[in-house]
Amino acid sequence: MSKQPQLFTSLSPALLHLYDLSDSIVVIIDVLRATSTIATALYNGAAAIIPVDSVPLCIEIGEQIGGITAGERDGKVADGLLYGNSPFEYPRSFIEGKTLVLTTTNGTKLLHMALANGAPQVITGSFPNLSAVCDFLLAQNRNVVLGCAAWKDRVNLEDSLFAGAVVNRIRHAFSINCDSSQMVEALYLSAKNDLFEFMKTHNASHYHRLSGYGLEKDIRYCLTADSAPVVPVFGNGKLLPAT
Amino acid sequence: MSKQPQLFTSLSPALLHLYDLSDSIVVIIDVLRATSTIATALYNGAAAIIPVDSVPLCIEIGEQIGGITAGERDGKVADGLLYGNSPFEYPRSFIEGKTLVLTTTNGTKLLHMALANGAPQVITGSFPNLSAVCDFLLAQNRNVVLGCAAWKDRVNLEDSLFAGAVVNRIRHAFSINCDSSQMVEALYLSAKNDLFEFMKTHNASHYHRLSGYGLEKDIRYCLTADSAPVVPVFGNGKLLPAT
Repeated sequence: MSKQPQLFTSLSPALLHLYDLSDSIVVIIDVLRATSTIATALYNGAAAIIPVDSVPLCIEIGEQIGGITAGERDGKVADGLLYGNSPFEYPRSFIEGKTLVLTTTNGTKLLHMALANGAPQVITGSFPNLSAVCDFLLAQNRNVVLGCAAWKDRVNLEDSLFAGAVVNRIRHAFSINCDSSQMVEALYLSAKNDLFEFMKTHNASHYHRLSGYGLEKDIRYCLTADSAPVVPVFGNGKLLPAT
Repeated sequence: MSKQPQLFTSLSPALLHLYDLSDSIVVIIDVLRATSTIATALYNGAAAIIPVDSVPLCIEIGEQIGGITAGERDGKVADGLLYGNSPFEYPRSFIEGKTLVLTTTNGTKLLHMALANGAPQVITGSFPNLSAVCDFLLAQNRNVVLGCAAWKDRVNLEDSLFAGAVVNRIRHAFSINCDSSQMVEALYLSAKNDLFEFMKTHNASHYHRLSGYGLEKDIRYCLTADSAPVVPVFGNGKLLPAT
């Protein structure tokens, strides 16, 4: 058993420094909606996704490379950008072959933070690519840190639920000495019969924020497994599908 | 509903800064074993408990006031101190009328941090005083932040379980816009039929650390409700029972 790689869960970017990333695959999780949209756009053939942390940078890079600029602030497409954060905006008929320059807050910050903290491999996870991510992690046989993007450093349900789903799927191949991983798995097991209903009943802050914008369809999609089976790998400022 | 006070859960000291403590009662939670021992000693008639963050300070204050010095490092009574962290060391026959100078790491740090961050009222919570704490919080009709001491900033199961038990008991009187509170309640509900078994099965880091020291009896006691119904209030460097 001692030869198994280790599995940890960081529930918030404010806790990421507690984990040794230097020999780990880090999975960045921002279920509503950054990493769900990233998986969807890549699965639908986007040439690459460039995650950036501000609207001006998004515009600048979009112009430089002729990319699709996208991002929201307060539930609306941000001024100066052309598209939003919804996975439904990126069907194959639109995004295939194009580069998406996407600005999000929590998820983008954590992607860069993971690399800056020395992680040799950074990927993104969400329910649309749950099985693809789990298969990838099982194949690598390496330590894993599940990094929840949370909301302004506050722990959130949806990222924790996804982390719990991963723990539940791959724990047999890992050594787990991490109470956060145990917690998110217990949470996932209590919610898995109907994740959407669980989110609604438990008054999750993102559910209410997003459903206030009329995005129930997005939320349902973002809680459904395996519609976009791809593993987005982050490096050199870009997300590309694992080869 | 909007007139109800708010309830938040901070899963780690590293997250405490995210919450506005300035108009909140903060409940410090360090289930294994600081806050369980604090409740027990006060319930058994200790004159006061002085929590300090180092062994030298514990010795110094103990000498000044003629108090009982207590604290452990690596599962043993620390050099220079006389007693340990176990609640069973503080029966009424021993502790009544005496002042306990107790050094712990995670719990003490968080007590001082809560006051330093402007909390007007700081109390301690643990299963031995679960109902007393809940009754107190319900009577105050004020915002509450449940502050888990965690383990070197890493989220732990036992403090989260206690926070969940409190959320479950008092949520009807509070407005909850806090996913951490929802998470700990879901965790508690999935574990409450046998907290000890849950801790054991889920390989909680403290369970293994403490059971390695032969402290199963302590753990069982620390997960059992209401054997020490008292509300320890922190102020002027001391913990005293609420009047």
